Amino acid sequence: DEFLKVFSLNSNPKLAEEIADHIGVELGKSSVKRFSDGEVQINIEESVRGCDVYVVQSTSNPVNEHLMELLIMIDALKRASARTINVVSPYYGYARQDRKARSREPITAKLVADIIEKAGANRLITLDFHAAQIQGFFDIPIDHLFGMPILSKYFEEKQLKDVVVVSPDHGGVTRARQLADRLKAPIAIIDKRRPEPNVAEVMNIVGEVEGKTAILIDDIIDTAGTITLAAEAMLDSGAKEVYACCTHPVLSGPANDRIEKSPIKELIVTNTIPLTDQITSSKIKQLSVGELIAESIKRVHEHRSISTLFS
Amino acid sequence: DEFLKVFSLNSNPKLAEEIADHIGVELGKSSVKRFSDGEVQINIEESVRGCDVYVVQSTSNPVNEHLMELLIMIDALKRASARTINVVSPYYGYARQDRKARSREPITAKLVADIIEKAGANRLITLDFHAAQIQGFFDIPIDHLFGMPILSKYFEEKQLKDVVVVSPDHGGVTRARQLADRLKAPIAIIDKRRPEPNVAEVMNIVGEVEGKTAILIDDIIDTAGTITLAAEAMLDSGAKEVYACCTHPVLSGPANDRIEKSPIKELIVTNTIPLTDQITSSKIKQLSVGELIAESIKRVHEHRSISTLFS
Ligand SMILES: Nc1ncnc2c1ncn2[C@@H]1O[C@H](COP(=O)(O)O)[C@@H](O)[C@H]1O
Ligand SMILES: Nc1ncnc2c1ncn2[C@@H]1O[C@H](COP(=O)(O)O)[C@@H](O)[C@H]1O
Repeated sequence: DEFLKVFSLNSNPKLAEEIADHIGVELGKSSVKRFSDGEVQINIEESVRGCDVYVVQSTSNPVNEHLMELLIMIDALKRASARTINVVSPYYGYARQDRKARSREPITAKLVADIIEKAGANRLITLDFHAAQIQGFFDIPIDHLFGMPILSKYFEEKQLKDVVVVSPDHGGVTRARQLADRLKAPIAIIDKRRPEPNVAEVMNIVGEVEGKTAILIDDIIDTAGTITLAAEAMLDSGAKEVYACCTHPVLSGPANDRIEKSPIKELIVTNTIPLTDQITSSKIKQLSVGELIAESIKRVHEHRSISTLFS
Repeated sequence: DEFLKVFSLNSNPKLAEEIADHIGVELGKSSVKRFSDGEVQINIEESVRGCDVYVVQSTSNPVNEHLMELLIMIDALKRASARTINVVSPYYGYARQDRKARSREPITAKLVADIIEKAGANRLITLDFHAAQIQGFFDIPIDHLFGMPILSKYFEEKQLKDVVVVSPDHGGVTRARQLADRLKAPIAIIDKRRPEPNVAEVMNIVGEVEGKTAILIDDIIDTAGTITLAAEAMLDSGAKEVYACCTHPVLSGPANDRIEKSPIKELIVTNTIPLTDQITSSKIKQLSVGELIAESIKRVHEHRSISTLFS
């Protein structure tokens, strides 16, 4: 379909290639560079007039650079008469700033939603929002995909015995339940609480892990503090071995080191964020969301073609 | 006035101090840092409820970082019930991307205007927009200040003899005329044209420079290519000596080197952008716009107080 175009910016060029391949199109020709003073310089090198354009860009580190590339690309596509501009942001950055936890905090996840819309996006395709509520920050339609089935498939094929799926905190219990259903396994929850202000947290495990293979699941692993402490708590409670998985491998700062030193046997992640050169741990296995996203784009585009037919 | 607050972000902390001093207030307490993954973390450490807040931030290099700091600060101030949010952006970045010079180019100067407004800004105070048209990109009021009187004062005090004010291109003639009026001097224009496509530009000087002291003026000096070539053209045409000045010292890439090697005797700039450590040329003199901006803020705030009185 000559009216479906996929463009890549600088965050996930390999994933963008993969998505285009699955759909059966060539990546759109464009370049995204910097002027001498650091300003983003975008050139779209083919016509997009009347096209449904999909722009692949995670707002991952360096988040502000990636976000501005995205906004400027949307502006350029809009002015070049694209019919629709569909943002494919496998990882939606700033998602943890989604509420005022303290006075005078920004809600950057809403600000980013607002400015993506203001720039001219018509749709967002993304995976595992940190909180489902973020959908409500947008007025445009969102295709909210999940990495869990991809992670689950990996563990199913591994045929691990006597598994327990573990949520490292209260917020992730639903996600753990979903993976557990697929693996036909029970769940456990790490129940952290602070008995009194300014007293160290107590880690209590709700559920049975003794003698079992624990699979920890989270949406984001950033500095890997939570997940590696959780892994230790598993062994301390008698688990036989510990796997971990997440959709978004942010893996900043001490993450690689912590994972390498932790009792985690394997960490399964997806490629919503590419692994940087600093991430060298051989424990980390990356699975692709390329096909998942391509199928989602095909579904969206099919409906558009039908609606054009009748309009 | 306890309802006037000035906050600084990371682009111009010294200028912000100076502005607050001139107004007679302390800088607002806040911190602007980064989370481990590079996301902006802002803490406003005092109440702003009901206040008229002035946020000092140029969108200078690193422009995307500075812009996101600004947007997130505006969001936080808005949610913290500031009465008005006034952006003081001495240098407005992305201003050169203010029109579609070629097909499928973005108009980033408009995008940035849109997202600053969307975030919640009520007013913008800035100096020397690259094009006056950028005012029209905003729906909020703009206080558009000029660096020229500050530059002019410097040259008046120097009491140079037999001056000609020179615009390095067609776009800057009005600015050159204004400086020339103040210095009671004639103007000249460097008239570049390309006789045929793919043929080198020809530099022709319109006006008399022989035996004179030439003062080149521009709004922005970025890589310093234009200004240093212009300086050479002046000497080639018999000028006795060459000074140069501009409001916004972007000075990226080869700028320092080019200025150092050029026949320019002194380059007078303002502090809308602080000079980085890479800018070591002793030819560069920086004048402050602190008082100019402080006076503008005082005028704005006076009117607000009056309008409150009667509402
Ligand atoms: N990029 C980030 N890195 C670490 N913490 C963050 C980041 N963004 C927001 N936060 C904080 O993380 C908390 C929300 O995380 P959560 O409880 O997992 O939803 C809030 O207190 C935020 O201030
Ligand atoms: N940051 C930048 N550095 C260098 N050139 C730029 C920058 N931003 C925009 N431009 C280009 O500068 C030209 C406009 O400059 P001007 O003719 O001086 O208004 C346009 O062709 C832009 O593509």
